[in-house]
Amino acid sequence: MIASLPTTVRAAVMTAPGRELEIKAYPLLPPVTGGALVRVTCCTICRSDLHTWRGRRPGPTPAILGHEIVGEIAALAEDVTHDSAGQPLAPGDRVTWTLHSSCGECYYCREHQLPMKCLELQKYGHDACDQPPHLQGGFAEYCHISAGTSLLKLPDNIPDTVAAPLNCAAATVVAGWDAAELKPGEHVLIQGAGGLGCYAAAMASFAGAERIIVTDIHSERLEFVRRFGATDCINVASLTDEQIANWVRELTGGFGVDCAMEVAGVPAVVPAGLASLRKGGRFVELGCSFPEATTSLDLSTILWNLLTIRGVHNYDFRHLQQAVDFVSQTIDRFPFDELTSRQFKLEDIDQAIAAAEQNGLGRVAIVFD
Amino acid sequence: MIASLPTTVRAAVMTAPGRELEIKAYPLLPPVTGGALVRVTCCTICRSDLHTWRGRRPGPTPAILGHEIVGEIAALAEDVTHDSAGQPLAPGDRVTWTLHSSCGECYYCREHQLPMKCLELQKYGHDACDQPPHLQGGFAEYCHISAGTSLLKLPDNIPDTVAAPLNCAAATVVAGWDAAELKPGEHVLIQGAGGLGCYAAAMASFAGAERIIVTDIHSERLEFVRRFGATDCINVASLTDEQIANWVRELTGGFGVDCAMEVAGVPAVVPAGLASLRKGGRFVELGCSFPEATTSLDLSTILWNLLTIRGVHNYDFRHLQQAVDFVSQTIDRFPFDELTSRQFKLEDIDQAIAAAEQNGLGRVAIVFD
Repeated sequence: MIASLPTTVRAAVMTAPGRELEIKAYPLLPPVTGGALVRVTCCTICRSDLHTWRGRRPGPTPAILGHEIVGEIAALAEDVTHDSAGQPLAPGDRVTWTLHSSCGECYYCREHQLPMKCLELQKYGHDACDQPPHLQGGFAEYCHISAGTSLLKLPDNIPDTVAAPLNCAAATVVAGWDAAELKPGEHVLIQGAGGLGCYAAAMASFAGAERIIVTDIHSERLEFVRRFGATDCINVASLTDEQIANWVRELTGGFGVDCAMEVAGVPAVVPAGLASLRKGGRFVELGCSFPEATTSLDLSTILWNLLTIRGVHNYDFRHLQQAVDFVSQTIDRFPFDELTSRQFKLEDIDQAIAAAEQNGLGRVAIVFD
Repeated sequence: MIASLPTTVRAAVMTAPGRELEIKAYPLLPPVTGGALVRVTCCTICRSDLHTWRGRRPGPTPAILGHEIVGEIAALAEDVTHDSAGQPLAPGDRVTWTLHSSCGECYYCREHQLPMKCLELQKYGHDACDQPPHLQGGFAEYCHISAGTSLLKLPDNIPDTVAAPLNCAAATVVAGWDAAELKPGEHVLIQGAGGLGCYAAAMASFAGAERIIVTDIHSERLEFVRRFGATDCINVASLTDEQIANWVRELTGGFGVDCAMEVAGVPAVVPAGLASLRKGGRFVELGCSFPEATTSLDLSTILWNLLTIRGVHNYDFRHLQQAVDFVSQTIDRFPFDELTSRQFKLEDIDQAIAAAEQNGLGRVAIVFD
């Protein structure tokens, strides 16, 4: 419960790609209609924050990055009484939220049920912060939640550092398995044993997948992902696409996997993923969310093998809800806490970014008192 | 009605890639259990026959090519009394059939409902003919129908030369729109205005598509496809992918098409097709059924735009049934008869192949008295 709100709060601001972030003060405004004000308790650094900071993805400046945020309700707009799951909401409640707000009325929202592609889309940690309400990113002490954002109260058994990545990494993986139409008893291939790969393995395990094969080029990651339910781990550093596909077929009764998910963020791994599918198999592309992620594909493989390839970017509220439910139910089964391995204070944001760029095991968190 | 059967019949046999076919005689055997013997009345030449003959696709020899076949029942196995749609079957009935036979019991048939990928698959016009029953291709006077093939009686209002391509080209296009989940009121892009493009346009029109945009590099084909319901035809010979996508967006309210189908058989057109889709759009790949059909794709486009790509090769019986029903219902609306523009006798098979290779308007048919 928050007794009284400060008048100004601190944020780490990106002023230009690659430049050190600047700690700046912003006035704390009341929540807007349909929205809320959240005191940020934790924000993890996503690879897309690093892409933006490095200038590999275009983004406006000055900006407060960070979208994998959890916090507690500091103030609610008068018309906001419940979260999007229908639970009553009050100041002090721990919440996460969809990383975008959408209008609910446009071509993509209404005609195609793609709120993540809303024509009026606003994404936390992506917009310029020079105009009020300024605070819409996670590298700051407070965050303004806009109308059109789906808030979700967090179960008590999920700590902040475990909860933070759920509204991006974990929810996107839920959307990925949804797009892949994963069914119990199926064999899956996960390309990449980073954070997304760990969520992907754990969810596939929980969903009843039989073989959960994970590939990566780092042995320590492959060891780690076993703890998330991976049944077979292959270091592909020195293997050809054909060798990888042969290995996968050997593990799956000769036919290949039913579905595959690319979460390595490496375009060149996709042909091996496609070659590892059985006929009629489904491939979901989650990892390559940066421009010019080009690779050469043989269309005849896609055609003859009746493959489906689906791109997944962001997610719908139900996927976030499912990610939170999943982690709450399986928190004693999988070591989710180890996915966020390092913590920094806001004033040490540059060290935090440097640590995140080292690409080690686990996410980097900014934590607040 | 066939009064008496000859003891030997003629077939045009491929002995090696690129070599002139040889007219040979084979003994006419009785139908096998679960099968039938058909007197071929017409067989059209498919591009994949040309790929096989040119050696671009591997295939055994000696072989009787030709799989777009219609004919009349000459003899039925004792256990065959009805076609796969449940209509009674008797000698003399005009029939078409699935271009493959499948076992109904294997991993792909039973577990995945992919009879076209049956582990015991046999495809008409694809196998060696040196073993009995020899006659399983359309460039011959008779054809043996195996058990596991779905026969379908033809409506009287579809002439032979119109019926022949239905069990390959038209049924595959039905499977393509099925994979694309085309809905009434949607905008579509068809890449390629050949025979498949004409079927695709006509079916999209019949299914209630709003804009039916067709691209090709031959103006006379683009004129022709208008008669099959194309609403907008674009000659893309001198356009960049971006110009094509911009044109498509202009025609569709700024967003792009809901689904696109590649039937040009040209890998390089795929990026323009993907770029022409709205977010959440679906792309079906039908055209590139030859090895090493490689093209460079930007995975970030697929990911950010939540695209679906599906490969379609051959089809299930219901697609053939739907193709035949569709043509029967719309034969007065679309000039299907002009899709088969040239006819040759079996003894002139080499001229027929040369004519088919010219790649002009319309298919080439081998017709029998």
